[in-house]
Amino acid sequence: MILVHTPSPKEVSAYLELFQAAMPEQAFVSLEQATPDEVRYLIAWGLPDGIIARLPRLQAMFALGAGVDKLLSRQDLPVNLPLYRLLDSGMANQMTEYIRYGVLGYQRNMDVYRRQQATGQWRMLAPQLPEDVRVGILGLGEIGSAVAKALARDGYPVSGWSRGPKHIHHVHSLHGEAGLEKLLETSDVIASVLPSTPQTQGLLNGARLSLMQPGSMLINAGRGDLLDQDALLALLNNGHIRCAQLDVFAEEPLPHGHPLWHHPSVTITPHVAAITLRQQAVEQIVGNLRKLAAGLQAEGRVERAQGY
Amino acid sequence: MILVHTPSPKEVSAYLELFQAAMPEQAFVSLEQATPDEVRYLIAWGLPDGIIARLPRLQAMFALGAGVDKLLSRQDLPVNLPLYRLLDSGMANQMTEYIRYGVLGYQRNMDVYRRQQATGQWRMLAPQLPEDVRVGILGLGEIGSAVAKALARDGYPVSGWSRGPKHIHHVHSLHGEAGLEKLLETSDVIASVLPSTPQTQGLLNGARLSLMQPGSMLINAGRGDLLDQDALLALLNNGHIRCAQLDVFAEEPLPHGHPLWHHPSVTITPHVAAITLRQQAVEQIVGNLRKLAAGLQAEGRVERAQGY
Ligand SMILES: NC(=O)c1ccc[n+]([C@@H]2O[C@H](COP(=O)([O-])OP(=O)(O)OC[C@H]3O[C@@H](n4cnc5c(N)ncnc54)[C@H](OP(=O)(O)O)[C@@H]3O)[C@@H](O)[C@H]2O)c1
Ligand SMILES: NC(=O)c1ccc[n+]([C@@H]2O[C@H](COP(=O)([O-])OP(=O)(O)OC[C@H]3O[C@@H](n4cnc5c(N)ncnc54)[C@H](OP(=O)(O)O)[C@@H]3O)[C@@H](O)[C@H]2O)c1
Repeated sequence: MILVHTPSPKEVSAYLELFQAAMPEQAFVSLEQATPDEVRYLIAWGLPDGIIARLPRLQAMFALGAGVDKLLSRQDLPVNLPLYRLLDSGMANQMTEYIRYGVLGYQRNMDVYRRQQATGQWRMLAPQLPEDVRVGILGLGEIGSAVAKALARDGYPVSGWSRGPKHIHHVHSLHGEAGLEKLLETSDVIASVLPSTPQTQGLLNGARLSLMQPGSMLINAGRGDLLDQDALLALLNNGHIRCAQLDVFAEEPLPHGHPLWHHPSVTITPHVAAITLRQQAVEQIVGNLRKLAAGLQAEGRVERAQGY
Repeated sequence: MILVHTPSPKEVSAYLELFQAAMPEQAFVSLEQATPDEVRYLIAWGLPDGIIARLPRLQAMFALGAGVDKLLSRQDLPVNLPLYRLLDSGMANQMTEYIRYGVLGYQRNMDVYRRQQATGQWRMLAPQLPEDVRVGILGLGEIGSAVAKALARDGYPVSGWSRGPKHIHHVHSLHGEAGLEKLLETSDVIASVLPSTPQTQGLLNGARLSLMQPGSMLINAGRGDLLDQDALLALLNNGHIRCAQLDVFAEEPLPHGHPLWHHPSVTITPHVAAITLRQQAVEQIVGNLRKLAAGLQAEGRVERAQGY
């Protein structure tokens, strides 16, 4: 028996139908339908506390998302339970679109034109070409490396930062504290797709944000706790940072009345940069279930020692 | 002697330098420096009235832009003077970026998120994939065909409309009144890069705009007189059209206080979708001057009989 859960009952029904069609030999059930003793696998996102402890035969868990920081901080997740996360499943393409939209808007001065529009100002700006806009990507994993490659193909000079050095065609690889400072100092747009880990939390603090180019842009689509929001606001207000596109926040939903909501240079999206695409998620997890059944290694295993 | 003119003296100096460097054997001069009797070629944009009549030896004119509607409506342009316009010269790429920005924003609901942001609303919308967004391009000439091909490569289903049928890979070609109606009825985003001609003026009137899909988007980067702005405003206000991105207007600059400036679903840019790139314009015109000197046909000759 395989238990499927998300916070939305409608979504659970949709998933159950897709999983059942893809793997008719297994029984996929919702939380209400489940017999705890018989549950071997758990496919979930936003699971209430205490459920895992009631599943004595659980062999592995599949997260219905790419970022597993919340899951790992749970008290009820047995340390030795194999945990798998979604790899890409359409998310890299969506993230590429989200970041391309920000970069293209910056290149073509759309943020400036939007501010001019607010005051009815008609003023042409010098055109910028893709080769004029240096893009720095924080995180070069499944998602970040796909974003970096796509933007390099668009004609932007692209650098990226990760824990270790990378070899990605047309992407300049940086790592370590010195690499991060270099990236911040030499990019016109910084886009973060880093996971939240003890090492990345608070990474984009005031000191590091101040290293960014005057007139540059910040995109955060990784996790909200990477970024000191107050420091960002101060740098937007003094004009050092020209604009920001933010999808993730220290507190989500972004609290009512928060100054980021109403900042003229900030675009806010409600954590939608890259959404799990059901059909693709189902195919990936079903592929993994078949591998496990055949005694093979499944993909996307979370290295718990790395902290994410 | 070759006369170079634009409304900005700074720009004229920049052009003179580039032309002189590219073709040292010729004398390039500004309006102040010119000896009217000796001017053989005129390279210009925004020329004051009455100049052309004072150039008895003029052999041809080169427009420093792609759209020559204003030029053709002048009283002082001899009907038999060969007129050349710029082909592409970096404009097709820029126009592709401008329209891609609009289409990508529509696909990813950025206009809706921007309206939600204005009221501090955090609400996720279902993700749309490129294959879900049908794009209709009005005009498949130098610029429109490049835009259509690029968006088809991005994964959008693309149709286009022109005077005659076209064969462009992965682009569905339509023409004639029936073709226009079909395009309007079956596109999620309509993007116009039509020239202004007696046949296209007022083309996008209330009746035709009403054929657009409920919840669709309009991009106009062709010419302002194609579009009935009041009809557009009415359709935006009753929610039939979801949003618009406008670069060209019936009157430019868009008059102060015009309701389009402050409409929450409209993005206004000041006629910058595709700007003439100096170096590329100079190379193209110099290439043409060399062809004429060698007795060959130059490129970009305007077919005056077509009305543009
Ligand atoms: N906003 C959204 O809608 C959305 C959607 C999906 C995902 N996300 C976020 O995107 C994150 C990345 O997803 P992914 O699938 O690409 O993850 P991934 O494959 O694990 O990649 C993570 C990348 O971050 C780098 N990294 C991790 N810790 C680091 C550190 N301390 N210093 C420097 N670099 C570090 C890794 O470096 P190495 O390669 O050297 O290990 C790797 O390149 C997720 O964790 C999630 O937070 C957001
Ligand atoms: N906003 C900006 O910054 C900017 C910059 C550059 C250009 N533009 C505008 O873009 C326009 C197009 O430039 P271009 O270089 O692509 O011109 P082009 O090569 O002459 O192409 C014009 C296209 O429009 C079609 N067309 C013309 N009249 C038509 C009619 N009555 N019915 C249907 N289709 C018609 C033509 O059809 P056929 O192919 O069948 O002849 C052709 O496909 C310019 O004229 C200018 O107004 C705007």
